[in-house]
Amino acid sequence: MAKKVVTFGEIMLRLTPPDYKRIVQTDTFDIIYGGGEANVAVSLANFGLEAAFVSKLPDNPVGQAALNALRRYGVNTDYIVRGGNRLGIYYCENGASQRPSNVIYDRAHSAIAEASPDDFDWDKIFEDCEWFHTTGITPALSENMSRITIEAVKAAKKHGVKVSCDLNYRAKLWSKERAGEVMSEIMQYVDVCIANEEDAEMVFGIKSGSDVEKGEINVDGFKNVASQLIDRFGLELVGSHLRISHSASDNGWLVVLYDGKEFVRSKQYDIHIVDRVGGGDSFAAGLIYSLLKGKELQDAAEFGAAASCLKQTIPGDFNHVSVKEVESLAAGDASGRDKR
Amino acid sequence: MAKKVVTFGEIMLRLTPPDYKRIVQTDTFDIIYGGGEANVAVSLANFGLEAAFVSKLPDNPVGQAALNALRRYGVNTDYIVRGGNRLGIYYCENGASQRPSNVIYDRAHSAIAEASPDDFDWDKIFEDCEWFHTTGITPALSENMSRITIEAVKAAKKHGVKVSCDLNYRAKLWSKERAGEVMSEIMQYVDVCIANEEDAEMVFGIKSGSDVEKGEINVDGFKNVASQLIDRFGLELVGSHLRISHSASDNGWLVVLYDGKEFVRSKQYDIHIVDRVGGGDSFAAGLIYSLLKGKELQDAAEFGAAASCLKQTIPGDFNHVSVKEVESLAAGDASGRDKR
Amino acid sequence: MAKKVVTFGEIMLRLTPPDYKRIVQTDTFDIIYGGGEANVAVSLANFGLEAAFVSKLPDNPVGQAALNALRRYGVNTDYIVRGGNRLGIYYCENGASQRPSNVIYDRAHSAIAEASPDDFDWDKIFEDCEWFHTTGITPALSENMSRITIEAVKAAKKHGVKVSCDLNYRAKLWSKERAGEVMSEIMQYVDVCIANEEDAEMVFGIKSGSDVEKGEINVDGFKNVASQLIDRFGLELVGSHLRISHSASDNGWLVVLYDGKEFVRSKQYDIHIVDRVGGGDSFAAGLIYSLLKGKELQDAAEFGAAASCLKQTIPGDFNHVSVKEVESLAAGDASGRDKR
Amino acid sequence: MAKKVVTFGEIMLRLTPPDYKRIVQTDTFDIIYGGGEANVAVSLANFGLEAAFVSKLPDNPVGQAALNALRRYGVNTDYIVRGGNRLGIYYCENGASQRPSNVIYDRAHSAIAEASPDDFDWDKIFEDCEWFHTTGITPALSENMSRITIEAVKAAKKHGVKVSCDLNYRAKLWSKERAGEVMSEIMQYVDVCIANEEDAEMVFGIKSGSDVEKGEINVDGFKNVASQLIDRFGLELVGSHLRISHSASDNGWLVVLYDGKEFVRSKQYDIHIVDRVGGGDSFAAGLIYSLLKGKELQDAAEFGAAASCLKQTIPGDFNHVSVKEVESLAAGDASGRDKR
Amino acid sequence: MAKKVVTFGEIMLRLTPPDYKRIVQTDTFDIIYGGGEANVAVSLANFGLEAAFVSKLPDNPVGQAALNALRRYGVNTDYIVRGGNRLGIYYCENGASQRPSNVIYDRAHSAIAEASPDDFDWDKIFEDCEWFHTTGITPALSENMSRITIEAVKAAKKHGVKVSCDLNYRAKLWSKERAGEVMSEIMQYVDVCIANEEDAEMVFGIKSGSDVEKGEINVDGFKNVASQLIDRFGLELVGSHLRISHSASDNGWLVVLYDGKEFVRSKQYDIHIVDRVGGGDSFAAGLIYSLLKGKELQDAAEFGAAASCLKQTIPGDFNHVSVKEVESLAAGDASGRDKR
Amino acid sequence: MAKKVVTFGEIMLRLTPPDYKRIVQTDTFDIIYGGGEANVAVSLANFGLEAAFVSKLPDNPVGQAALNALRRYGVNTDYIVRGGNRLGIYYCENGASQRPSNVIYDRAHSAIAEASPDDFDWDKIFEDCEWFHTTGITPALSENMSRITIEAVKAAKKHGVKVSCDLNYRAKLWSKERAGEVMSEIMQYVDVCIANEEDAEMVFGIKSGSDVEKGEINVDGFKNVASQLIDRFGLELVGSHLRISHSASDNGWLVVLYDGKEFVRSKQYDIHIVDRVGGGDSFAAGLIYSLLKGKELQDAAEFGAAASCLKQTIPGDFNHVSVKEVESLAAGDASGRDKR
Repeated sequence: MAKKVVTFGEIMLRLTPPDYKRIVQTDTFDIIYGGGEANVAVSLANFGLEAAFVSKLPDNPVGQAALNALRRYGVNTDYIVRGGNRLGIYYCENGASQRPSNVIYDRAHSAIAEASPDDFDWDKIFEDCEWFHTTGITPALSENMSRITIEAVKAAKKHGVKVSCDLNYRAKLWSKERAGEVMSEIMQYVDVCIANEEDAEMVFGIKSGSDVEKGEINVDGFKNVASQLIDRFGLELVGSHLRISHSASDNGWLVVLYDGKEFVRSKQYDIHIVDRVGGGDSFAAGLIYSLLKGKELQDAAEFGAAASCLKQTIPGDFNHVSVKEVESLAAGDASGRDKR
Repeated sequence: MAKKVVTFGEIMLRLTPPDYKRIVQTDTFDIIYGGGEANVAVSLANFGLEAAFVSKLPDNPVGQAALNALRRYGVNTDYIVRGGNRLGIYYCENGASQRPSNVIYDRAHSAIAEASPDDFDWDKIFEDCEWFHTTGITPALSENMSRITIEAVKAAKKHGVKVSCDLNYRAKLWSKERAGEVMSEIMQYVDVCIANEEDAEMVFGIKSGSDVEKGEINVDGFKNVASQLIDRFGLELVGSHLRISHSASDNGWLVVLYDGKEFVRSKQYDIHIVDRVGGGDSFAAGLIYSLLKGKELQDAAEFGAAASCLKQTIPGDFNHVSVKEVESLAAGDASGRDKR
Repeated sequence: MAKKVVTFGEIMLRLTPPDYKRIVQTDTFDIIYGGGEANVAVSLANFGLEAAFVSKLPDNPVGQAALNALRRYGVNTDYIVRGGNRLGIYYCENGASQRPSNVIYDRAHSAIAEASPDDFDWDKIFEDCEWFHTTGITPALSENMSRITIEAVKAAKKHGVKVSCDLNYRAKLWSKERAGEVMSEIMQYVDVCIANEEDAEMVFGIKSGSDVEKGEINVDGFKNVASQLIDRFGLELVGSHLRISHSASDNGWLVVLYDGKEFVRSKQYDIHIVDRVGGGDSFAAGLIYSLLKGKELQDAAEFGAAASCLKQTIPGDFNHVSVKEVESLAAGDASGRDKR
Repeated sequence: MAKKVVTFGEIMLRLTPPDYKRIVQTDTFDIIYGGGEANVAVSLANFGLEAAFVSKLPDNPVGQAALNALRRYGVNTDYIVRGGNRLGIYYCENGASQRPSNVIYDRAHSAIAEASPDDFDWDKIFEDCEWFHTTGITPALSENMSRITIEAVKAAKKHGVKVSCDLNYRAKLWSKERAGEVMSEIMQYVDVCIANEEDAEMVFGIKSGSDVEKGEINVDGFKNVASQLIDRFGLELVGSHLRISHSASDNGWLVVLYDGKEFVRSKQYDIHIVDRVGGGDSFAAGLIYSLLKGKELQDAAEFGAAASCLKQTIPGDFNHVSVKEVESLAAGDASGRDKR
Repeated sequence: MAKKVVTFGEIMLRLTPPDYKRIVQTDTFDIIYGGGEANVAVSLANFGLEAAFVSKLPDNPVGQAALNALRRYGVNTDYIVRGGNRLGIYYCENGASQRPSNVIYDRAHSAIAEASPDDFDWDKIFEDCEWFHTTGITPALSENMSRITIEAVKAAKKHGVKVSCDLNYRAKLWSKERAGEVMSEIMQYVDVCIANEEDAEMVFGIKSGSDVEKGEINVDGFKNVASQLIDRFGLELVGSHLRISHSASDNGWLVVLYDGKEFVRSKQYDIHIVDRVGGGDSFAAGLIYSLLKGKELQDAAEFGAAASCLKQTIPGDFNHVSVKEVESLAAGDASGRDKR
Repeated sequence: MAKKVVTFGEIMLRLTPPDYKRIVQTDTFDIIYGGGEANVAVSLANFGLEAAFVSKLPDNPVGQAALNALRRYGVNTDYIVRGGNRLGIYYCENGASQRPSNVIYDRAHSAIAEASPDDFDWDKIFEDCEWFHTTGITPALSENMSRITIEAVKAAKKHGVKVSCDLNYRAKLWSKERAGEVMSEIMQYVDVCIANEEDAEMVFGIKSGSDVEKGEINVDGFKNVASQLIDRFGLELVGSHLRISHSASDNGWLVVLYDGKEFVRSKQYDIHIVDRVGGGDSFAAGLIYSLLKGKELQDAAEFGAAASCLKQTIPGDFNHVSVKEVESLAAGDASGRDKR
């Protein structure tokens, strides 16, 4: 059996009003179970890799439903611990046109946020593992989780596992100062970092001149930031997606990678958004897949960009696409034509 | 304007899978905002009374939606405080036949559970008020809420407001011992108590011989318990609904009242259940309405029984029936025939 | 081609909240297009007869949708006139258990209610026709419609067409006095009358001792009434369904027929109701079918009873069952067992 | 308590097929209760103002549901009269791309259209009121309503209440001639008028050269028309939204205001439409709010434009947005980016 | 009565996940019954013509539902044969943005694919018929169907019926070689051919230089191909729609016609797609209607283009538009503005 | 890791109209993936056992969705072969009251029906396996499948695996004669047989006097048949569920077991049916679980009866219940009371 990829973090219940309704209008919620690291695991399983997700879920039907959502799409859930009090929730209003999406977190006191170091046996988890992925959200969940995430990346290195991390700064979860301390330690063990300029500045004080509000892509800004990250933490690669938000309905989207020597950017997609949630995660998954398969840097960028473009045409957090579908788009067929 | 009725407690977001699905099967949740004391307020507003609900709700769209649900049905929300972190949630699988309904609480850390005494100005709340209703759930939410509820009933008495309380013991929220202490203090200020035998035993150690599991009605048991409650706390009236659970789909249902002298029981309804949640609350509302309108004891029992029978034929927590509809059923037309 | 059956009356848009909700709770309405005489036509088309429905519908998409609903199930709509201002509407809350169904009519000023005698060419309509069916609702819609209905039954007789009429007294549409006048004239031309005791008393002052509120079947009462109707109007046959409303969810149901000599009653069905609307119409259709096919009186009763029993297990006004399905139930298989 | 804003007109039941279906295809209708003046009241309540809606609604569950829709969003319904025969209805197919939206009115004989002058006690209604808003639809409903609306604006003036009116000419409701007579009288009492060129020409014969079919904005045309309106009726301000219909899915949208001296236009929004209904009403509400809050003319235009842009990204007639959300868009963030 | 138009082919059950979901995500399927030739028949019936669809459908409720879908929209189903084993199915994921629609056929062994020549009495079918339409899909269903289709076009010619055929090459159903043989024989009897360059090359080896993947319209390429088709088969007219797939959500669309002398192209529409399925069929219907009504070539192109543009703004296979709506768009109003 | 249980057969796409609609009425289908042997596997996985399902599924999204449905609920899908042309389908109308459920199979030519012996490596499948379960449907799918099933049971015996088989005669799939031949061979390797009297008579000509149409339970009949089966095939145990179909909505249900010495019957449940499909399969799963856990015969009957009772209160084919829930019901709590 192929070696596995492990991701670690929180999966939440996402409650979304249907049909672009606002929360005050709706009588039903559509249910999605998702979260950054879980989304990466599902993408990788859909690409045919052995992917395991590590987390803690309450031992009740809601926790079970989250676990089932992962199993349904082929993710290994053997290392998920059961216990704790609740599954984290986020309410998400899908935006449209000039109205932005609106996310309301109700994730405090979740099982994973209150997990203890004893819950995870990293030596067992990293048996037959070749890649470990986590994000800056995971250690932000609680002091315990900061500690556990540091233990996890250390253990990964000990087992010779590649480590990727998506900075993903969440101001609602921790301060810039605390994020800087913890992420600086975690980054000692990271090989591949996903970070946009804003995250890099918030977490590490690394500055560049891009202004993402203006809808212009500052590719040079990213390269500058990536270069500083590589220098500071000895990374192999830094990647980022760049989103140009024309409106909540229409976004430009491309991907940039820098490995300290070569800088590549993917073609740019103009996406008519179905669901933007999980866009960044599907890029991370596309990048991990590309690196595991030994793709060239430019090809990795194109694969990651195409994968994450397709994600945003699909409802929910998960990226339900095959390698073949991604490669077809990466190869240039963006016409959306069907074949019969 | 007529004097108002005030109820005090928690309103939650109820998430229910449609069509008798279990949580692990469902892709959508039906949304209900409800809770024991809020349900009473809505019933009373539907009966044409001025009803106000007092609580604390988070200042976000989810809290707003809960407040809107109350306004929609005519409840005065002027005394609801906004703030805190989250709206309490409960997941509810509707049972069917031999499969019981299944409730999963996710209500810890709600805005109301973390409310402070300063949040409520009882003197203002009880202006122009003639009745105050709360339940044993409200003080069970937190230590603070125990204190606040005691303050509330004291203030009610000070303003010459009648006080009713539904014992409603919740083992998941507090111990029997703590419940006994707090409820004993609250009961000093209560005029009308709603209590079944099980609650009375759990909270006050008052015993009787009924066994509700067996599906038999022990009317004598209730009378004995009610008598002890009246003696101990100087109550005017004790009421209870009695449910005979043939299955999750079919229940027998009747109402008993005892005022220390007269004991009455309503006719019994065999209900094909649409939604049993809120059955007890709609009885409480029917009883309060009856007492405010000066109905005879037997008539109060019939009105309360008919109101709560109808509630269980309606989806959701709220009892969307008029006085006319209740009186029509109470007067004997249980045939479900339509008129054209 | 076989000769056709013609029915004449109003088809309305029925708006029903889903899942036993009340109108004040619902965000969507399920759409049904139906009406007594249209329901009969659909039943007969489903039985394989050539059935035409005559009415007037507004020349807009709502009228078209009503017409399409008839075409969909094979009803000939060639004689439907287009014009007028609106399609009649009725809101219908489906009852459950002790809560009755609730119908709110919004049918005034409909195209058919405002139709004029010139709209219908009865000589053309009754070409190749062997049966004409209408109800006491049709002439009640307006003074014009009283006149038109009388013209219709006269024309039917002129063309040698059998005429059936379901008394169906609607107190909201006309007075007992006016109903008596008009229906007495119409009955001169009727061969087969469907009437329960209540209708007979309201319209013609014919009395009997049954009390349908009490849930007891007064078969003798019906026979007495039928006998008086036959005597007064020279009818061939009088039929009635008898409904025993245990609750809105569970009804007893049977059918009685009297031809002046022989009196028959069908077996009784205890129906767990899915949708009671159209029950009487499906009996009328079953009776017409039976008479056209020359069934014996007892067989006609059984066929009519089985057809209308099945209707009430199907959502909507229309009876989507085949002759084979009806005969299977009439022959005694009421177990609801499936066959694979 | 702050002084209230009163709006007066008709609220209807809107029946819309889901998912861009046409009426002939659909099995369900989505339910919205809305109408021009009610929509303004809801917007203002969402902006935190005390807003009351005056109308007449039938005393049945459908009328109650319309009233509840207003209460749900905080509108004062104390002055709504109950009675009459029916709630007006409009069917609305949502357009898409080159297919226009299609509205079918079924509003004749509604409770409000058949209201009598005695139904409304304007002296009581205008107590503690600072603004009154109505539209050209309200007096068009019937002769009685023409009279009542004139009484209303007169009473408003008597109580020192500011009056705004949206011309909103509806050719299906009355002739140009009758509209001209009645509106000319009403305009004597109006301070702020909302009118586009087409309305001004239809109602008052005021001409300008704009051709809205061509998709070009004739700002000069509006200014010319506004100037004539101000001259003729002594208005304080004339406002208009300008819609550039590229297709049913994509519209340009901006707002212009003229006070006789200063002319301002808002920035233009290119909106990907979710629901265009209520766009003009949300502009009216934004303008009223701005004027009550003493905003500068340019700021008022920007607030009104942003409010009405956001409305069109939300399903239904009502504008579920807060002042903060409107100001965020007016301040320039139209990227639809979410914040986490 | 007007002479009828007959179309011949397969109608299938289309199963589509709602809301742009993929098949692996969905819990429900939206149901459409459709197919190229049936879609043409429905369009023509909606245009007010007498249209009959000829096929074979299984004698079960699923076959009945397909037949009912045709009747519902006014198609004559008298010539549909009942029998065989199953209704063909196709699963269709609606694409969005860069994600193409995905069609999975499950149509083998359908009743029509296994039909025998005896099933159809073409002499009877072509009585009072003025036009016959079929496509290259119909003979591709089976060897028998190749034979039957040839019989059908021969019989049509014998009865003096005009014949149109949409080449519609389906590589999944037959080889280029077999298609070439059969279609060459069929084309002997065809008057009007609908064909794009790709089909012409696949089936007849006729080549031109257009590259439809690139999103550019090669109008000259079509003219060249059409000219060759006319020369080879003696056709009266060749038509084609041209689709420029910017993405699955946005397409350019126009129509070209060539009659050997005159070449016309319609205006081009930029369509925001609701449902692209049936676009070509609605063009065919628009063309047939235009030719039957004697429209000029340019007008025919505009009518066909407008009809098929509108189709793609409507969910499902069928084109629910009237002649008036098509002509309004063809006359230039593409703004999607509603009229009230 | 515990040894696994393997089941073998077909999983199909079940298409069901919602809300008791008939196929001719519905616009959507609810999707269930299920089949006798798959249902058993899901039940066992829900009971905490390692359960694997063996089958062949098409390599397309529909096949993938079926596979995902199994993974979602914890079934091992490692031995499922991908290939073939289609997933079998069955349409299922849920019955109600006197209207039976109606199943329409469209399962011919499915991937599993056209599987070849090479597709399955039974030696690998039966590694670490302790129980093999199949049914009489599996060999009935095709000649190949008859052969493969015989190979499977032989291989199971070779690996010392217990074998259970549910006779489940399907007259639509094969003749009594062919069933008798094949099943007689399979039974040589079976230890535990599930069979009702009807199946035993159809397949093996074993007769008894029960008449299941009459709604009476012939327990003696079963014992007689079971005895003959044990004698003929050397079985360890024969079990059967007995269904008393009062109507499609209400069934009596109990379970009987006979091991050649002891005969036991479970308590009888009167079930208000939510979904009867999968009732027998959930009994089989309950029995297998009981035998693997070494339960006494009476306890096994009670567990099997309670499990299958609960299944019929849950929508879909799968039994989403835990061991704890089954044991709670088996222990006597059938009141459907919830606990809070």
